[in-house]
Amino acid sequence: MAERGGPWRTIHSAHHHCGWDNAIEPVAHVAPGETITLECLDAASGHYTRHSTSADIATMDPDAVNPVTGPIHVDGAEPGDALKVTIVDLAPSGFGWSALIPGFGLLADQFPDPHLQLWDYDRAARAPALLGAHARVPLKPFVGTIGVAPGAPGRHAIIPPRRVGGNMDVRDLAAGTELILPVEVAGALFSAGDTHAAQGDGEVCGTAIESAMDLTVRVDLIKDAAPRFPHFSTPGPVTRHLDGAGYEVTTGIGPDLMAAARDAVSGMIDHLGAWRQMPPEDAYVLCSVCGDLRISEIVDAPNWVVSFYLPRIVFA
Amino acid sequence: MAERGGPWRTIHSAHHHCGWDNAIEPVAHVAPGETITLECLDAASGHYTRHSTSADIATMDPDAVNPVTGPIHVDGAEPGDALKVTIVDLAPSGFGWSALIPGFGLLADQFPDPHLQLWDYDRAARAPALLGAHARVPLKPFVGTIGVAPGAPGRHAIIPPRRVGGNMDVRDLAAGTELILPVEVAGALFSAGDTHAAQGDGEVCGTAIESAMDLTVRVDLIKDAAPRFPHFSTPGPVTRHLDGAGYEVTTGIGPDLMAAARDAVSGMIDHLGAWRQMPPEDAYVLCSVCGDLRISEIVDAPNWVVSFYLPRIVFA
Repeated sequence: MAERGGPWRTIHSAHHHCGWDNAIEPVAHVAPGETITLECLDAASGHYTRHSTSADIATMDPDAVNPVTGPIHVDGAEPGDALKVTIVDLAPSGFGWSALIPGFGLLADQFPDPHLQLWDYDRAARAPALLGAHARVPLKPFVGTIGVAPGAPGRHAIIPPRRVGGNMDVRDLAAGTELILPVEVAGALFSAGDTHAAQGDGEVCGTAIESAMDLTVRVDLIKDAAPRFPHFSTPGPVTRHLDGAGYEVTTGIGPDLMAAARDAVSGMIDHLGAWRQMPPEDAYVLCSVCGDLRISEIVDAPNWVVSFYLPRIVFA
Repeated sequence: MAERGGPWRTIHSAHHHCGWDNAIEPVAHVAPGETITLECLDAASGHYTRHSTSADIATMDPDAVNPVTGPIHVDGAEPGDALKVTIVDLAPSGFGWSALIPGFGLLADQFPDPHLQLWDYDRAARAPALLGAHARVPLKPFVGTIGVAPGAPGRHAIIPPRRVGGNMDVRDLAAGTELILPVEVAGALFSAGDTHAAQGDGEVCGTAIESAMDLTVRVDLIKDAAPRFPHFSTPGPVTRHLDGAGYEVTTGIGPDLMAAARDAVSGMIDHLGAWRQMPPEDAYVLCSVCGDLRISEIVDAPNWVVSFYLPRIVFA
């Protein structure tokens, strides 16, 4: 990308917020076409270090979860416009964490206890990160939370994504991807954070490889082109870092997509236990950071098929 | 695969059934380890020809939908066993059809009128099939319906898949894949059909590139190893024939996975209309035969993200 080679203006991570509110004062003004770097905290605002243990999950500050850097006012943006955000680069920290947080995640009922997984990886080489002796997870840094301020007044929680984006956790919002967001307020009020070093489709345990990163984006404005929901285009393949050795795939079949997704992931955790002797907590984390939930069919009423694809390359 | 190079015993397509019932007499007995070829009719039992039009959708025989070839009795199979089916080869006919069938499909409410798309493709070279002047769809033949007889007595409709497999429409049940099915009756009573030349995850319009094929499988028995739901392993990557030029991706965001899936697909049809000037009927068929429904996140309560990935290679 021609834009690479900065540095550009940097928005420091001190300028962050943990909820969406269009009354939050912008921390910077940018012109359409400008490229900026956002320092992004990890989703626990630096709570975890290389010395942390599962006991530290209980002391996470709920008011400091999922901080996003911003908001950034885009000159000329008006409700009804589209904000085009080109993800230029993500520079990860080299340290990450994943957690099973009681009450959170697709199988929260089956995993009542806290469990912390720490990850060290080479921030430059980005070799696969080790999950103990069990697996090696290829990395693809991306931004989990990216969006603009909702038009509705007041504070909106940071965890749920919505029409204006936010905590979408789409693992292909990686370098080179162009994201189109609908603008709902003057200046758009763009923010981003919750950067991840790797995640599968679904983020099934509720966390990815959570890592602080510097995120560089270019912002452009397309007048009167707000989409109904966010959409994006990827510059190339999205799973070639994962797919080389094929997949183990479990399914869930039934009339409810959520139940089918739960069955597919539970089935994979059982399969990894039987096949790889993985403890269920490790298997659940592994599923979250590299396995993909796909809807195989959604038309053969009354039963749908949700499949969970785990790439065998993690065991290579 | 070592098995290639038959011919093996062939089960002719005259031996088919259109519902699951463990009282149907087996048409053949095979031993574990045996390889057989099943002649599979297309999902409309040959109703469509190269001269068919949309008007012919109204005269499809509802009693001849989704025929499967079989059932095949596997010696020694007992309830609680697992049947391992290795998909050795699929030899497609070279002709296919896709249809928008009133009342059927993810967006049935938005597409009330019948619409037929015919496909001609080189059965040997398997070059991408043309959707008019709009797109070229890479092929990957697979078997849409594959399963064993349910243990519960009586006739079970052929359209819904269930624990014992059936009309799963998982597009990676292609050559080289090993599928594990739970056996519920003595002899397993295996059948397969509904072969497809190409389909995306979701099969959103309700049909794929429906094509008659010869399906060659090897059946093996794993005693006392019935999985809760079917699972499978693929021998290698599953989307490299599609992903080379990247993807256009639309999203749906909200508390209901089905509504989010509908929003994502509707958004893609709108996008293809604006970007490629595709009529909505053609766009919907294209989405069904090559676009993928993925669950990007299923944990950021109360809102989930379903994404629809359309490979740009179809426009290359």
